[in-house]
Amino acid sequence: MDQKTIKALKQIVSADNLRTAEEELLCYSYDGTGREFVPEAVALPGSTAEVSAIMQLASATPFPVVVRGAGTGMTGGSLPLAGGLVLAMGRMNRILEIDVANQVAVVEPGVITGDLRDEAARHQLYYPPDPASFKFCTIGGNVAECAGGPSAVKYGVTRDYVLGLEVVLPDGKIINTGVRTAKGVVGYDLTRLFVGSEGTLGVVTKIILRLVAAPATKQTLLVLLDSMERAASLVAEILARHLPCTLEYMDRTAISLVADKFPAPIPEGTAALLLIELDGDREQVEHEGQRLRAFLQAADQVLTVQAAQDATEAEQLWAARRAVSPASFTLRPHKISEDVVVPRTRIPELVATAERLAATGKIPIFTFGHAGDGNIHVNIMLDRGNPAEVTAAENAKRALFTKVIELGGTLSGEHGVGITKAAYLAMELSAETIATMQAIKRLFDPGDILNPGKIFPPPGGDEENI
Amino acid sequence: MDQKTIKALKQIVSADNLRTAEEELLCYSYDGTGREFVPEAVALPGSTAEVSAIMQLASATPFPVVVRGAGTGMTGGSLPLAGGLVLAMGRMNRILEIDVANQVAVVEPGVITGDLRDEAARHQLYYPPDPASFKFCTIGGNVAECAGGPSAVKYGVTRDYVLGLEVVLPDGKIINTGVRTAKGVVGYDLTRLFVGSEGTLGVVTKIILRLVAAPATKQTLLVLLDSMERAASLVAEILARHLPCTLEYMDRTAISLVADKFPAPIPEGTAALLLIELDGDREQVEHEGQRLRAFLQAADQVLTVQAAQDATEAEQLWAARRAVSPASFTLRPHKISEDVVVPRTRIPELVATAERLAATGKIPIFTFGHAGDGNIHVNIMLDRGNPAEVTAAENAKRALFTKVIELGGTLSGEHGVGITKAAYLAMELSAETIATMQAIKRLFDPGDILNPGKIFPPPGGDEENI
Repeated sequence: MDQKTIKALKQIVSADNLRTAEEELLCYSYDGTGREFVPEAVALPGSTAEVSAIMQLASATPFPVVVRGAGTGMTGGSLPLAGGLVLAMGRMNRILEIDVANQVAVVEPGVITGDLRDEAARHQLYYPPDPASFKFCTIGGNVAECAGGPSAVKYGVTRDYVLGLEVVLPDGKIINTGVRTAKGVVGYDLTRLFVGSEGTLGVVTKIILRLVAAPATKQTLLVLLDSMERAASLVAEILARHLPCTLEYMDRTAISLVADKFPAPIPEGTAALLLIELDGDREQVEHEGQRLRAFLQAADQVLTVQAAQDATEAEQLWAARRAVSPASFTLRPHKISEDVVVPRTRIPELVATAERLAATGKIPIFTFGHAGDGNIHVNIMLDRGNPAEVTAAENAKRALFTKVIELGGTLSGEHGVGITKAAYLAMELSAETIATMQAIKRLFDPGDILNPGKIFPPPGGDEENI
Repeated sequence: MDQKTIKALKQIVSADNLRTAEEELLCYSYDGTGREFVPEAVALPGSTAEVSAIMQLASATPFPVVVRGAGTGMTGGSLPLAGGLVLAMGRMNRILEIDVANQVAVVEPGVITGDLRDEAARHQLYYPPDPASFKFCTIGGNVAECAGGPSAVKYGVTRDYVLGLEVVLPDGKIINTGVRTAKGVVGYDLTRLFVGSEGTLGVVTKIILRLVAAPATKQTLLVLLDSMERAASLVAEILARHLPCTLEYMDRTAISLVADKFPAPIPEGTAALLLIELDGDREQVEHEGQRLRAFLQAADQVLTVQAAQDATEAEQLWAARRAVSPASFTLRPHKISEDVVVPRTRIPELVATAERLAATGKIPIFTFGHAGDGNIHVNIMLDRGNPAEVTAAENAKRALFTKVIELGGTLSGEHGVGITKAAYLAMELSAETIATMQAIKRLFDPGDILNPGKIFPPPGGDEENI
C-alpha cells in the first residue's frame, strides 16, 4: 500500500482514524483462532459514505479490504490474509432506533451484541442470538458469520432476526436489502445472501433487526445421566413435548474438567449432562417446569434432576458450563475447536467417534454443545510444539469431518468456514455447488478485493489450516 | 416449439407425460390472478433426472420454461407469458421422509401443503406455514413464492422452514443447497436465495423442511372494537405480552360483508374485528387464554370479547373470516387483491388510506389480514368492463403502494412480485438494488429461459398489470 493510497485513505476517514504504526496494526491482526496476519493499514470509518469512498478507492487501486468487528471469530473471517486494509467498524456503533411497538431495532454494525440485548431489555424486548462472546462481539460480525448460541434451539440464529441491511458493495455502490416489517418477499432475498457470507460480498453498514417480547423469567435444570445414548434419546423426547430456550450437553470428559465447579457433587458413573432452560411468563414456566421435572424424574437412566433454586444457583451451573473451555487447557496448551452439526439423534455416534479418535491419536478430545439442535463443539487438544500431536490432531479433524458428513451433518453450525475449514469444503458441497457460490463471489467482487482467501478451497490444493 | 423439440421432450418424460393438445394446454394456462397465457407444451416430469434433461434441452434449443405447482399463485408466477414449456410438478409429489426424532421432512415439490401438514400431524409434528390455499397449493409453489399465512405471526413463513434444497439450474446442472440439520453456515445461503425467487433461478426438485412439535390445542377469541386505531394499538399491546399463533383483523367493510355469518350478532358501531388464536399444550393455553381474555375485557374501546366454546364455534368464526373473499363479489365482479405490509402500528393509516381511495375512486375497497405482522390484504373491487372503474382501480393501486412505502412498508408480504407488481418494483427498490438482483438472474440464467418476464419491470417501460 503506497503513500498515495495512505494519503487518500486519510482524506476519507481523517488522519485520526487511520492506523499505520506497527504496534497499532498488531491490535487488528488476530482473531479467535489465535492466528496473526498483520494488515498494512487500518481504517476506522465513521459513516456509510466513508465506507463507500474506501471501497471505491480499493477497487480502483486495487488493494484487499477485510472488515473487522471485535475479532472474536473462530474461523479467521476477519484475518487480513493478504495484507491490505482492515476496515474496523468499531466507530459505527450506534443503536439508531428501537421501535418498541413494532419490535424492530436499527443498528450500526459495530454495536456490541450484549449492548443491544441490554438496550432491548430496557424496553421489555429481547434480541435472542447469544454467541458465547456476546459481551464482546459485534452485531456486524454476527451477521457476517450468522452467529448462533445456546438459545438457537428455541429462537433460531442471527439469520432469523435480520430483516434488512444497508450494504456497500465492493465497487462502492450502496444498496438496501429487505424490509423493516415482519414479512417481505419483493425480489431476491439479498439480505440472507449477505448474512453468513463472511464479509466476502459486501460491507454491512446498517442492520434492521427483529426483536421479540422479553420472557419474564427462566428456569434452569441440570440433568445427569449414565449414558450419552440415553441423553440423546432424552433430548428428542424433551423436544417432542417442550420448547426449552437452552438444551446444552457435556460429555464425560467435559464434565470431569469442571466436576468441582457444580453446586452438588457429580455422582460416579455420570456419562452425560444436560443443562436445560425454560423461559416465558412466570406461571407458564412454573407449570411447564413442573411437567418437565416430573417427566425427567420418571425417565430411565437419569441419575439426578436438579432445578436451580434461584438466579445464583442457575448462574453457578452456567459458570461450570463456561469453565469447560478455560479448564481444557490443563489437558494441553492448544485447542482446535470445531462446531460441527449432526441430526440430534446422531450425537451419540459423534461422541463415540470423538472418544475413538482420542484413543487412536493419543490426544484428549471432548465434546459439549447445543444438543437441542445437534450443534456440537468438538475440542481437539494438542501441543503444537509436538509434531506427532499436530499430525494426530489433523487426522482427527479430517476423520471427524468425514463422520459428520456420513451422519448427514454439516461442518459448521455457527462459526463459518473462514480459513480453518476452507480446505474441507468439498467434503460437504459438490463441485457444482461450490462453483455456483464462487460465481456469486465473482459477480459481487470481480477484483477479489473483499476478504480474499476465505471460504473457498485455496487454489493451490488442499493446504489444511488446523 | 418445433416437432423436433416435442419429440425430444417425449423421449425425456414419455409421450404419456407430455401435453400438447389445446384443451389440455388450457388447464395449465391460468393462475390465481385470473389471467391466461397458453403454453406450447406441458411436461410432467417424474424425476430430477428428467427435469435436468429438459433444462439441458431448453438451454440448447432454446425455449422458455415455466415451473407450475397447483396454479394458485396470486401474482402470475406460474403463467407462461412467452409460451414455451410448462413444467408441471404434480407427479413429483412424494413425501420421501418424515424423520420424527429430528423433526425433519424431505419432500418433492408437488406435495400438496395440506397433505404434508396432515402427514406431520400423524407423527405429532406440525408444518406451520398455512397460506389460504393450503388444501390445494404445493410446497414447491410455497417455496418459489415464500408463502406465508395467518400462523406467520408466531411461526414465520416458508423461508423459516426450508433447511435445504435440490435444484436443477437452467443449464441442467443439479445442485444441493443447505443442510438437513437445525443449523448450518457452510458457504453462501443459496437455499434462501432460491426461496422466494419465483421460479426464475432454478427448478426445485427436492425440499428439506424443518418441522416442530404439534401444539396440543388451540383457543380462538373474537374481539370487536369501535375503532381501527384502537385495534392496531391493542395488537401491539397483545404482542408485548403474548405470542398468539393467529392475529387477524377485518375492517368495517369486510365485517359488513359477512356480518350474518357470525355466531352472535355484530353490535352497531363495530369498526374493527380481531380474530386471535393461542396454541400450545392444554393447561398452558387455558392459563394464557384466561390472562388474555382478562386483559382484553379490561381494555378501552373493546365492545365484546368472545371465546369460542368448542371447535365448532371456532370453525364458525373462521368460516366467517373465509367468507369475506367470496362475499366481496356482491360488491363488484372483479377484484384486485394486494398483500402489502406495513409496520403494524401503521395499519390504521393504511386502512384510512384505503377508505379515502375508495371514496375518491367511487369503488369499494376493503382490507383484512394479518394484523400481527402488518401484512394487509387490500381488496380493490371493480367491474373490468367499466373503463372508469379500471382507471380508478389503477390509480388506487398506485396511491396505495405510494402510501405503503411512505409508511415504511413493502409491496408484498407473501404473494411475490410476478407480473402484477413488476411495474412498481422501483417504488420500493433502488436502481442499484434492482440491478444487483438482475445480475444474479443473468448469472444463473444467461439465456433468460426460466420464467422470463417475471419480477423485474418490463424493459418497454412501466406497463401496469392490474
